[in-house]
Amino acid sequence: MSQKIALPLMAALSLVTFVGAASGDGHADKAMKGAIEARQDQMQLFGYSMGILGGMAKGETDYDSAKATAAATNLAALAKLDRSILWVEGSIQGEVEGTRAKATIWSDSAGFEKAAMDMEAGADALASAAGTDLDALRGAMGAAGKACGACHDDYRGPRN
Amino acid sequence: MSQKIALPLMAALSLVTFVGAASGDGHADKAMKGAIEARQDQMQLFGYSMGILGGMAKGETDYDSAKATAAATNLAALAKLDRSILWVEGSIQGEVEGTRAKATIWSDSAGFEKAAMDMEAGADALASAAGTDLDALRGAMGAAGKACGACHDDYRGPRN
Repeated sequence: MSQKIALPLMAALSLVTFVGAASGDGHADKAMKGAIEARQDQMQLFGYSMGILGGMAKGETDYDSAKATAAATNLAALAKLDRSILWVEGSIQGEVEGTRAKATIWSDSAGFEKAAMDMEAGADALASAAGTDLDALRGAMGAAGKACGACHDDYRGPRN
Repeated sequence: MSQKIALPLMAALSLVTFVGAASGDGHADKAMKGAIEARQDQMQLFGYSMGILGGMAKGETDYDSAKATAAATNLAALAKLDRSILWVEGSIQGEVEGTRAKATIWSDSAGFEKAAMDMEAGADALASAAGTDLDALRGAMGAAGKACGACHDDYRGPRN
């Protein structure tokens, strides 16, 4: 590694420490905690987009085509995040703290992948429809919401 | 809206309430709080990816091409989330609780957009390089980390 690269890299690495990333310190438990928090951040961002879209669908906020598109487009991008670093082996409710992830996510990985792909498809359809008009938004919310709920039903354990 | 659409829509809307989305209830303060939390979730997800990559760059964890690609690809996707629903007008440090966003994000919106585009470009370069080998990862981390730091320096206020 040349000196030319080393200086900005040092700056980048100091930033990594600064942002308090939970992984990368060689401790498996911290890496697992980081993965659990990361997927919960992802879920909260799903909820943020769905909240904006749901407010419009329910008529609590005015329909805004640009805002609906932004929310649904973000949802679709978030749904496609690589799952391999989020759903790490062993991060199971009852085995580690702070998660409601069922063991079936890993023991039935094909089913979980199918549920996740349904969510991706639902979010893509919502991203295509949300900016058209309120009826189109409402129509596409059904499938997306169903995909969210189906995965929660099958792969999320009870509240502690 | 036909009855055929109405039933899944109802299910979707009940989910929106269930996931506790902060927006869509007609209260501007809750919408602003939701936006602040959403961009902080995004930042934490940036940090999660950078933590994985930084651990490898520092030699604290073994270099893993697939994992590096997953982390950097997620970073690049997250960097491209539509900012209009995250950086909402008025969500400024000192004016509302729970944010360190400077007023200059809005008063110097062209500068903020430039900083954000630099971050997108840095994350894209990292996504392209991360899976090649450890030296390529280290090289690309410099530019990405610099983009993170530059935006924090200019547009993030002090800790409270």
